[in-house]
Amino acid sequence: MDSWQNKKITVLAGGVGAARFLYGLQYIHPPDLITAVCNVGDDLSWNGLHVCPDIDTLIYTLAEVEGDFGWGIQNDSHQTLDELETLGEERWFQIGNKDLATHLIRNRILQTGGTLSDATQALVEARNIKSRIIPATNDPHPTFVVTNEGRLSFQQYFVERRGEPQVSEFDFPNIDQVSAAPGVIEAIKNADYLFFAPSNPFVSIDPIIQIPTVRDSILESKALRVGISPIVGGKAIKGPAGAMLESLGHEVSAYGVARIYEDLIDLFIYDEIDSKLVTKMESLSIKTRYCDTMMLNRKSRVTVAANIKELITSHTNEST
Amino acid sequence: MDSWQNKKITVLAGGVGAARFLYGLQYIHPPDLITAVCNVGDDLSWNGLHVCPDIDTLIYTLAEVEGDFGWGIQNDSHQTLDELETLGEERWFQIGNKDLATHLIRNRILQTGGTLSDATQALVEARNIKSRIIPATNDPHPTFVVTNEGRLSFQQYFVERRGEPQVSEFDFPNIDQVSAAPGVIEAIKNADYLFFAPSNPFVSIDPIIQIPTVRDSILESKALRVGISPIVGGKAIKGPAGAMLESLGHEVSAYGVARIYEDLIDLFIYDEIDSKLVTKMESLSIKTRYCDTMMLNRKSRVTVAANIKELITSHTNEST
Repeated sequence: MDSWQNKKITVLAGGVGAARFLYGLQYIHPPDLITAVCNVGDDLSWNGLHVCPDIDTLIYTLAEVEGDFGWGIQNDSHQTLDELETLGEERWFQIGNKDLATHLIRNRILQTGGTLSDATQALVEARNIKSRIIPATNDPHPTFVVTNEGRLSFQQYFVERRGEPQVSEFDFPNIDQVSAAPGVIEAIKNADYLFFAPSNPFVSIDPIIQIPTVRDSILESKALRVGISPIVGGKAIKGPAGAMLESLGHEVSAYGVARIYEDLIDLFIYDEIDSKLVTKMESLSIKTRYCDTMMLNRKSRVTVAANIKELITSHTNEST
Repeated sequence: MDSWQNKKITVLAGGVGAARFLYGLQYIHPPDLITAVCNVGDDLSWNGLHVCPDIDTLIYTLAEVEGDFGWGIQNDSHQTLDELETLGEERWFQIGNKDLATHLIRNRILQTGGTLSDATQALVEARNIKSRIIPATNDPHPTFVVTNEGRLSFQQYFVERRGEPQVSEFDFPNIDQVSAAPGVIEAIKNADYLFFAPSNPFVSIDPIIQIPTVRDSILESKALRVGISPIVGGKAIKGPAGAMLESLGHEVSAYGVARIYEDLIDLFIYDEIDSKLVTKMESLSIKTRYCDTMMLNRKSRVTVAANIKELITSHTNEST
């Protein structure tokens, strides 16, 4: 079990799936040894406020205040949103009154010369979170979804159009100008374990790893690089990953995801419900393992983190 | 009575006093002939949002949603403010959830290239207000209050320090760079009646009339220029005007205010409770009249507007 002690863990993270994994991880590992590098491709400007859905989901989940569907704050109210609607404003993106406090603090920091890293750190500290959460980049790096209804921002596609349009392609228009935020490259290079969280491979993980210096640092990292499947029993636990895999011609399964990550990872972990995929998985050039990965409540998140720790420990012992 | 019909009315306006006067005026005169030129010297950045206390007080009062103390929105709640406090933020400036909707719409317009004039017009239209409300300027034009506790922004002086410090001077640091907003000069020059609302002469009216082109346009205007006293019975109806008059060496009375405006107005109206000032008033180079000017409820605001209309009509008839 020594292989796990005092190790530096970095997690490439999207929203809900990553947040649940990080929540469990914090219980079985010193939080100050854990860094989440978080996607910002879903960020949006809401009435001129910079909103970071993935970062906020991580913060709220680790602070145990997350809403029932994994985003926003629990028991929030909507008087500001109601008033905006009274004044003739569109209401497709829902922001609660408590949630607004986050965006106001971030806004103040950004308007007074701070970076998204600065704002994120302030919000993490304000909620007494001991792990590090850092944005993948401080540069504008939006994800556009090319669909049969046209090119949509991620939130237009996912929230306004409820993920219904057929996806043909993703577009990161700024990718050539994007630099990794401070600490990202170091967190990846210096990690002992680098996780690809159980997040959407296309719109959560890819916007991070498409940043050229990030991709290079993953390839150069001495970390054990571990992917965790967001697809269980042929379906995404949350969000549009299943529909995206299908419309882009991938197999809608943990195996489909493993193939996407094959060139970048050493070990792929998927749910035991998909144990029938084991033969296919063994055809890959990477190691694969399965265990219970279902993280629907807080207790099960800790169980899953412990399961994954055990798989990694046994994998490491086999390899040495 | 014909002298009043179809006349263009422009009101130089601060917050609560001006809002109450405009509310009454709207009842006795076509709202589309009324323009309020509003002070922005009290504006502040609240978590990076541009907040305009005076403009918002005018809008909320004319829309009949103003809070009990003349600012904010009635029956508002404070979940966002509570959450900010939970996160360690200072709470000296109170903004309710409904009020926030105003600042978010303004923020979106300013962040996407619009001016404060654009934002104000959008907010006026969203609340179906038929009078025009325009900011005195779209440029940053803050009022600083020089006190025995140092140089404070107006909101620091008035809200954070509750108007307690002793005032020695006012400072408009940007005054030489400030241009009048679109429509301001025209509204003053083309007015038939130009009112100096019953607002604070130092921090509501002076920041408007110190704008060089505004002062010139007042002097050149063919309008009947009418000042209304914010001081009744030796006290300000609202706010720190009384304390400021005193600490700056003026008489704390309607007469003290009339002397300040003497070079810029033709007629000064004060409350009948101060009729004992009539001899002093007659020593001024301008005409003065008194009537009931108390506007504590909506009905009395209309009465006061009607009283003022009658005084002006009789003044005009005497003059011709």
